[in-house]
Amino acid sequence: MANPTAAMLVIGDEILSGRTRDANMHHLANELTKIGITLSEVRIVSDDAPAIIAAVKALSTSFDTVFTSGGIGPTHDDITADCIAAAFGLHIDVREDARALLAAHYKRAGTELNEARLRMARIPDTATLIDNPVSTAPGFTVQNVHVMAGVPSVFQAMVASVLPTLVGGAPLLSQTLRINRGEGDIAGPLGKLAAEHPDLAIGSYPFQKDGAYGSNIVIRGTDGTAIDAAILKLAALFPET
Amino acid sequence: MANPTAAMLVIGDEILSGRTRDANMHHLANELTKIGITLSEVRIVSDDAPAIIAAVKALSTSFDTVFTSGGIGPTHDDITADCIAAAFGLHIDVREDARALLAAHYKRAGTELNEARLRMARIPDTATLIDNPVSTAPGFTVQNVHVMAGVPSVFQAMVASVLPTLVGGAPLLSQTLRINRGEGDIAGPLGKLAAEHPDLAIGSYPFQKDGAYGSNIVIRGTDGTAIDAAILKLAALFPET
Repeated sequence: MANPTAAMLVIGDEILSGRTRDANMHHLANELTKIGITLSEVRIVSDDAPAIIAAVKALSTSFDTVFTSGGIGPTHDDITADCIAAAFGLHIDVREDARALLAAHYKRAGTELNEARLRMARIPDTATLIDNPVSTAPGFTVQNVHVMAGVPSVFQAMVASVLPTLVGGAPLLSQTLRINRGEGDIAGPLGKLAAEHPDLAIGSYPFQKDGAYGSNIVIRGTDGTAIDAAILKLAALFPET
Repeated sequence: MANPTAAMLVIGDEILSGRTRDANMHHLANELTKIGITLSEVRIVSDDAPAIIAAVKALSTSFDTVFTSGGIGPTHDDITADCIAAAFGLHIDVREDARALLAAHYKRAGTELNEARLRMARIPDTATLIDNPVSTAPGFTVQNVHVMAGVPSVFQAMVASVLPTLVGGAPLLSQTLRINRGEGDIAGPLGKLAAEHPDLAIGSYPFQKDGAYGSNIVIRGTDGTAIDAAILKLAALFPET
């Protein structure tokens, strides 16, 4: 049986403008691989309500689980919660359970729960809160969409809160063999090997280093014994000389 | 007038599985920003023909220009060219102009132009070739879609070949002010500043460092004088104390 599928929606201008590199995608990809959920698509959109709403609807329909990151803070450009509510036709306002969490947190910190911070208690009706052990302001889940913060430490903590609630599949295993020949030399035998192992995904990731061409061949699947057998065949096809 | 828009489609399992981090997205984002083209969306899909075809169609319709990276090499998992042909209803086969480029290149290198390498000459009818000064095997353009390699050095060379053919807009300028206060403290005045400057995009990118919260405020736009004025107002709102 095929593993469950997931998609990620990264919300915010910072990656699209080239200002920053994404860190959350890489973390989520690794965590999902461990528990046998296939990350099938990632989309990155800017802080633009129609784009966010359309992407949430499309991904929620196409995949078993969706994770979003970004846009749930207190500033004017944080519009994710309202977009999720719009995507699912839900009412949204400051919700008492989220407000209580923030009130207790800022009371302990001796900080005012001002109007801006209260925005972080805006949660769509019927959403389930996601625990945020780092900075309290919660994420939330609506249907199959988990809405999380963009700050990496908070994103990672929220992923850790959500993952135990998901049903995974067989963990995806992989082995990699680096072959110091151009892809054009190995493509023929590699294609035959892939055809002999339809249950394994065999990918070729070429590189160029110090003027020489090579490729990392990654063999992925859920059956470790089958992966080992295919890697041994591969190594025999291309002995280092 | 709004700047032209672009989208990027990254094709391949390696990022989705967590094996590698993307490098091409960051490069393209920076290059487009310089020439005033707005990168509006990025999608990452796996080596799966229906997913690639659907994404190409959707992005080609929604944005002025689309850039793809990955999946045009000689191995069995390189299916991008055939998917692009399918998306646009074009015939695809080994094309004489691309074959001639590869034949000359491999003759110079003393390497056989075997069946696998010939796959890199599979180009849809009516496509325009994209020059590849690094390793010869060309990319190609169909309508508003530029199809490029995933190896970063080759991707970057192809981007350099394509960019001069595009009509850009006003270069996107930006200034960043780091404010060492939590977003909840700055959100109110920041929102007012954003409302006073509707032609500028004002984004808040929070961070947490050594237990302290802060935020980088990035002000973007095409009018440098307006950006400078807004940054000065911002600095006056939040003096370092």
